[in-house]
Amino acid sequence: MKKVKIALLGLGNVGQGVWSILNTNKREIMINCGCEIEISKILVKDIDRARRVEVPKEILTTDAKCILNDPDIQIVVELMGGLEPAKEYMLKAIRHKKHVVTANKLILATHGEELFKAAEQEKVLFYYEASVGGGIPIIREINESLTANKIESIYGIINGTTNYILTKMSLEGMDFNAALAEAQEKGYAEADPISDIEAYDACYKLAIISSLSFGTKVEHSSIYREGICNLKPVDIEYAKKFKYAIKLLAVGKEVNNRLELRVHPTMIPEKHPLANVNDSFNAIFIKGNAVGDLMLYGRGAGDLPTGSAVVGDIISILRSNIDLSSISNIKNNLPPKEVQDRKDNISGYYIRLDVKDTPGVLGDIAAILGRNNVSILSVAQDMGNRNHVPLVFITHEAREGNVLNSIESIKALDNVNKVESVIRIENLR
Amino acid sequence: MKKVKIALLGLGNVGQGVWSILNTNKREIMINCGCEIEISKILVKDIDRARRVEVPKEILTTDAKCILNDPDIQIVVELMGGLEPAKEYMLKAIRHKKHVVTANKLILATHGEELFKAAEQEKVLFYYEASVGGGIPIIREINESLTANKIESIYGIINGTTNYILTKMSLEGMDFNAALAEAQEKGYAEADPISDIEAYDACYKLAIISSLSFGTKVEHSSIYREGICNLKPVDIEYAKKFKYAIKLLAVGKEVNNRLELRVHPTMIPEKHPLANVNDSFNAIFIKGNAVGDLMLYGRGAGDLPTGSAVVGDIISILRSNIDLSSISNIKNNLPPKEVQDRKDNISGYYIRLDVKDTPGVLGDIAAILGRNNVSILSVAQDMGNRNHVPLVFITHEAREGNVLNSIESIKALDNVNKVESVIRIENLR
Repeated sequence: MKKVKIALLGLGNVGQGVWSILNTNKREIMINCGCEIEISKILVKDIDRARRVEVPKEILTTDAKCILNDPDIQIVVELMGGLEPAKEYMLKAIRHKKHVVTANKLILATHGEELFKAAEQEKVLFYYEASVGGGIPIIREINESLTANKIESIYGIINGTTNYILTKMSLEGMDFNAALAEAQEKGYAEADPISDIEAYDACYKLAIISSLSFGTKVEHSSIYREGICNLKPVDIEYAKKFKYAIKLLAVGKEVNNRLELRVHPTMIPEKHPLANVNDSFNAIFIKGNAVGDLMLYGRGAGDLPTGSAVVGDIISILRSNIDLSSISNIKNNLPPKEVQDRKDNISGYYIRLDVKDTPGVLGDIAAILGRNNVSILSVAQDMGNRNHVPLVFITHEAREGNVLNSIESIKALDNVNKVESVIRIENLR
Repeated sequence: MKKVKIALLGLGNVGQGVWSILNTNKREIMINCGCEIEISKILVKDIDRARRVEVPKEILTTDAKCILNDPDIQIVVELMGGLEPAKEYMLKAIRHKKHVVTANKLILATHGEELFKAAEQEKVLFYYEASVGGGIPIIREINESLTANKIESIYGIINGTTNYILTKMSLEGMDFNAALAEAQEKGYAEADPISDIEAYDACYKLAIISSLSFGTKVEHSSIYREGICNLKPVDIEYAKKFKYAIKLLAVGKEVNNRLELRVHPTMIPEKHPLANVNDSFNAIFIKGNAVGDLMLYGRGAGDLPTGSAVVGDIISILRSNIDLSSISNIKNNLPPKEVQDRKDNISGYYIRLDVKDTPGVLGDIAAILGRNNVSILSVAQDMGNRNHVPLVFITHEAREGNVLNSIESIKALDNVNKVESVIRIENLR
């Protein structure tokens, strides 16, 4: 199988995520891109620093030139962050006819055009799915899935740090400073949190996605911006009273051929899908004139989710370079997977019975469930007449075969009139 | 500009949606695919039938051969539904080296392999985004965005009819038959609703997405299936009591290299994002070992949302056939769009004041808002001491400039101590 050499610039949080995905999912990735990916070099500041992942020292380098000038490296993945030297390195990689993948929202929002043009001139690919929304494929969504639409508006919760803080303030009644401190402790907020809490980060991201959505270049500095530092618990309480949730919302709309662009704390109806996007999750709600309402929800940051977007971009580049039938050949020769018997399926269960109100009935049923390894989470017994009482069991997760056996035995009990309902429960963990 | 001829097989609900998108969004689509799309022929059963869209009669035909044998037609779009003759026509189109786009879940779930193989042999593209989830780009998500992941599980609300019925039962206390009747009246359920309410439709769709997610061929008949006809209002009430919502959930999981596949009414925690997917909306919740939790939410059916996916596929095919720099040339020469002054932005407003409790204060403030065309939706006045009373206004949507002017005037009032908080409200319509 063909082997493709790539290099990473940077081995911080996201870089280690990319390394670990390329190793853990080696087989899936090989199937999906029809070739083997080898990280042949990684640019780091300090070769000896301790890292979560085990990377052979001989591929680490502190010299960018030995990556940018290596003709064997086909894709350069920029994960250093910051403006320079990241931008210079990407431009050099492009001039050396290498494809480039980046997660750098700051560069995209400030110098995106320059990089797009360079990539076009050199006929290489330049992908940046990870720059907005972490693992959420919002860039591909706009660029490829919604091409049939005129996009009318975007509403995004695109900063996980502030969403975590607002969730804590809203659900646990914390004030801003306490919530920020907790976010910093858990690694959701940086030591210097200004870019997040003053909404600069969200403005960069809104600039990127509104440029794509509305087909025009958007300067991040032209976006009206308000951070969340001044939000008071009392305002969050009033919001609840009026049935709103407060979110740091990035808004992009096209109105009469002009753009309305703003990022600020916003009250939104508590029944709206965006209102229930909590903790460090992100979500983007798009309205297209054909597709209607569409929402993407997922992890907006973190090593593996962001790495998922980065590696997805790498695979897209390799696919566009390769004979697609080679992928299909691998896929067609994979061993089939068996569908397991429903008796082995695992669910919680809701079981509603019609029973006679006699002293032993609950105990008899509990004993049957116990014998079959079906453990009870909760029981509810409502009023009825003595001969017809509704009795409801909620079980922990159990093997379906065991539940079916229990139900057969329960049906045979004298004091059980009928098994009225059996409904599976999924806790969706 | 290059013109590409395509043909539709069928001009029902989705066909008319595709026609209207290609006309309404002509300019956006041209920019996105770098060429002009012309529907040159449409296969119909009855040329004279009344339709919502105005289609020139001369492009309608009742003879499939004159489409399949026309060498000028590059893409055939199958929107007839049903097994035959749709499948035969698609195979013929492929054999005549035409690319094919379809929304036909039944054929995909039962004869997908045959069509994939034919398309591969003839080196044409075969796209089917619209077959699952209507306008939600779930196929592209799995096939292109999540390629870096091992997909662990899929939980989908992928049938809009049953979700509409369950929403009515749950939020309005209707029984199954009344909810079904209303769904039929509103066009969400067909006269013969069996395929939806007995969950056949959801099984076809689960077969398609689990085949892609788990890299193996899934027979729809191997999926355990239970419909929603037997659900009783009392079970929905118990579900609420235990803090669950009931959904018809399609579940696909890979467990020890075997697949767990099932579609049935399911209780899910009421705080989970899937629990709040109501009415005819669809959503698919995916867990990947890198990306973590990801949810896509949108319109699972309807002429325009489904048409959005179909036209998106057509554009993808045209892009893969064309010199991409031609698209970029068009894009670079578009006129830029202006960002409007924030004074013209429209939002509702939450305004919290600290006022002195005097008879005239509320009237004075209301008068200022009125003079500035800011209309009040709601007022809340809480207890405080006479000199410091919190007063909260919620406004209807207003121009930001008008609100800023009002606030300047309110600040100048003697009995207003301070404007404590001004937070925008978005109703996200």
